[in-house]
Amino acid sequence: MFTEELKQRFITIVGEKNFQDSRTSLLTYSYDATPGFQSFPDAILSPRNTEEVSNIVKLCNEHNIPITPRGSGTNLSAGTTPLHGGIVILMKHFDKILEIDEENLTVRTQPGVITKTLIEAVESKGFFYPPDPSSMKISQIGGNINENSGGLRGLKYGVTRDYVMGLEIVLPNGEIIRTGGKLAKDVAGYDLTSLFVGSEGTLGIVTEATLKLIPKPETKKTMLALYQDLDAAARSVSAIIANRIIPATLEFLDQPTLKAVEDFAQIGLPTNVKAVLLIEQDGSEREVDQDMENITKICRNNKAVEVKLACSSEEAAALTTARRSALSALARLRPTTILEDATVPRSEIAKMVSAIQQIAKRYDVNICTFGHAGDGNLHPTCLTDIRNEEEMKRVEKAFEEIFVKAIELGGTITGEHGVGAMKLPYLHLKVGEAGIEVMRNIKEAIDPNDIMNPGKIFAKSDRKRVVVHK
Amino acid sequence: MFTEELKQRFITIVGEKNFQDSRTSLLTYSYDATPGFQSFPDAILSPRNTEEVSNIVKLCNEHNIPITPRGSGTNLSAGTTPLHGGIVILMKHFDKILEIDEENLTVRTQPGVITKTLIEAVESKGFFYPPDPSSMKISQIGGNINENSGGLRGLKYGVTRDYVMGLEIVLPNGEIIRTGGKLAKDVAGYDLTSLFVGSEGTLGIVTEATLKLIPKPETKKTMLALYQDLDAAARSVSAIIANRIIPATLEFLDQPTLKAVEDFAQIGLPTNVKAVLLIEQDGSEREVDQDMENITKICRNNKAVEVKLACSSEEAAALTTARRSALSALARLRPTTILEDATVPRSEIAKMVSAIQQIAKRYDVNICTFGHAGDGNLHPTCLTDIRNEEEMKRVEKAFEEIFVKAIELGGTITGEHGVGAMKLPYLHLKVGEAGIEVMRNIKEAIDPNDIMNPGKIFAKSDRKRVVVHK
Repeated sequence: MFTEELKQRFITIVGEKNFQDSRTSLLTYSYDATPGFQSFPDAILSPRNTEEVSNIVKLCNEHNIPITPRGSGTNLSAGTTPLHGGIVILMKHFDKILEIDEENLTVRTQPGVITKTLIEAVESKGFFYPPDPSSMKISQIGGNINENSGGLRGLKYGVTRDYVMGLEIVLPNGEIIRTGGKLAKDVAGYDLTSLFVGSEGTLGIVTEATLKLIPKPETKKTMLALYQDLDAAARSVSAIIANRIIPATLEFLDQPTLKAVEDFAQIGLPTNVKAVLLIEQDGSEREVDQDMENITKICRNNKAVEVKLACSSEEAAALTTARRSALSALARLRPTTILEDATVPRSEIAKMVSAIQQIAKRYDVNICTFGHAGDGNLHPTCLTDIRNEEEMKRVEKAFEEIFVKAIELGGTITGEHGVGAMKLPYLHLKVGEAGIEVMRNIKEAIDPNDIMNPGKIFAKSDRKRVVVHK
Repeated sequence: MFTEELKQRFITIVGEKNFQDSRTSLLTYSYDATPGFQSFPDAILSPRNTEEVSNIVKLCNEHNIPITPRGSGTNLSAGTTPLHGGIVILMKHFDKILEIDEENLTVRTQPGVITKTLIEAVESKGFFYPPDPSSMKISQIGGNINENSGGLRGLKYGVTRDYVMGLEIVLPNGEIIRTGGKLAKDVAGYDLTSLFVGSEGTLGIVTEATLKLIPKPETKKTMLALYQDLDAAARSVSAIIANRIIPATLEFLDQPTLKAVEDFAQIGLPTNVKAVLLIEQDGSEREVDQDMENITKICRNNKAVEVKLACSSEEAAALTTARRSALSALARLRPTTILEDATVPRSEIAKMVSAIQQIAKRYDVNICTFGHAGDGNLHPTCLTDIRNEEEMKRVEKAFEEIFVKAIELGGTITGEHGVGAMKLPYLHLKVGEAGIEVMRNIKEAIDPNDIMNPGKIFAKSDRKRVVVHK
């Protein structure tokens, strides 16, 4: 129970200014970027330091108050909706990059730093932090860590987990631990760092992170390959990689997505083709040129109708920015946009794209597909209207079939968005009941009172995309 | 209790030929490569398939029989000694590489495959599997996974965990789960794959693994940089990386190690210098040449007395093979060799090397130092005699100080050998009591009866390197 007395104790910890419980605030933090999920918190707290986080958590643990840690709320699996009320913790005061260590190639940062700010800060010193979720302009590093965010450069450079070397974490009992460090190698016990990355705020609160940097590649080039045949585009993806070329970025956009993006960004994208691959390579000048030449040949051999190299870095940047805006562009078309991220081994991309089309047709729903083709990480995106119950049932069924198909092809229900509340009904498809049991046991071992983001990843559920109102 | 009835039930599972309990067998599997630790198992089982592993584990779980999974027994932290008796499980029937997938850049393998066999198999198809522990000629992939093995190529390419994409695991309750897959991105719940990698056999038994491959680099070059000043060698390491060059290998050998290795390998290593850096770079011909040129300059600017490029791939191979033999070479000098792997941020290598020298002098013990300087992962190696109790006490104290110093410099007690039984008394130095508590809770959640490799990583201890006899 969130009593007046508790409220006063929270205020004592964070100060009047960092406690919000006005109706507007509660509404603001009742949802994230996921349609169809809403639930009101009791209060929103913005602690100023790790000790305050620890004190908040201790109080919540004592009184069984649910905690939902939240970055910028760009979550697409309802992972940051406060499903069971309680408090939302904002990390806005944790907004400092603490140290860029040029000898150890690390950056130590607070979790509230905007991803793009961090990327630019390290690039200005000649370093490179690859994980670049499409939301990087507003997403926070802490959110990226909780979700193990991917991005457009995952194919060559991996995802957030590959760059987290150490964490400071406030555990559900309020204790503060530090994992890892500026260490390329560390096998002192279980890998708690990797366990906390991607744990969706269910195991503790990240208050500091040490991230790995790599030297910034010398140069980068960008091209578009155009196709009148989706299958040919998908085959090109496999062929590029089978030729031992790992591009930095290898994105797929189908025609409906292309049209929406061009309409939104107006940069002259081709809209008269069935599919486009957006390909980037980075490295030394010579290597990049050679790879681009080989990729061009491979795309042409796989029925690309045209291959265009961006003439300038401005043109290249416009292309990737346009790709990053795909969700926003599609969101303008209908009242509700549901973006999924079923993922398959990259060899299965062609089969998956065609299965998505067939499923959409069968259920008569409008699904556009784009995504990180090189990773097998597709984003089938349904344009719909959540107020239309009958249509939503069809959408629901279509996505369930998409997940089943992804698993059948050796894939997973989520490549980078997390399970949250939205994909919780499907987790058993990927990890089995025995796998869920292991996860649930770990959760109980670390958070016996289930205060950290309860109802996410593997709680019981009626297998529906529920809308919760308070 | 290991009764005759239980013995018969184990034999029913694996067959007569795969059950051993002769005195010779029990002796053989009573120790691993760690001096000073010995404890007899009750039996040694060699299951033929996953189902047999599951049946063995179920039986053990029912009767509280400890299980020690063992690869080739090259463990250096007493991780594969059966400290509490019970059974040792050998994976010798799990010796097949199941699939090399050229489109998805993965290899699916059984855990009993020898590391070097796997590396050569994928290289013959133009792929590269980087983790290369010094023991790779005899170590098994399953052991590498349980220990999260590093190696000489860790600086540029990371360690075993970075290459494990999916696992089949028999849990302590006998259930079989599959984690991950041929997926570059997968956030379906907690990262169980990373948790099991490096868990030292305390959470379950790995029966299959899907590993990531990368394209084989076009070429590779090798050089030696010679120093009359240890500090200068260490400074060169930092300077190379601060210049944004990440060599594939960057190894350090001090003079006593050099002498021992040369005496063993007889390949003309310089023995009249205080230290040597062994440096390898791989990549495209042009990049490698450019890096080697820059590295040469940096080493010379940091007081290298000589820099020699290997003239042929044979000469290069001889150098790395010699480095890999350092432990064997040193082991010839005195009855007991204790090899440690305290690890520090690479910027602290110079301080650590000099601290090790001072500590060795203070306790009047003979410590040679070599290791993966680029990672900050040093191998201070003590040449001693375990029968000399008085000397062993000084060795013990010296290593404790080395661990404390490593932690003080932001390092860890073990970079790649694991905690096992040997470094268990020091784990709190790195992860704190709260960190140990989290690990212990995870262990209890997954293995409530503590049958999987009990007494390793974080059990209670009298803080001594105990010798257990039966």
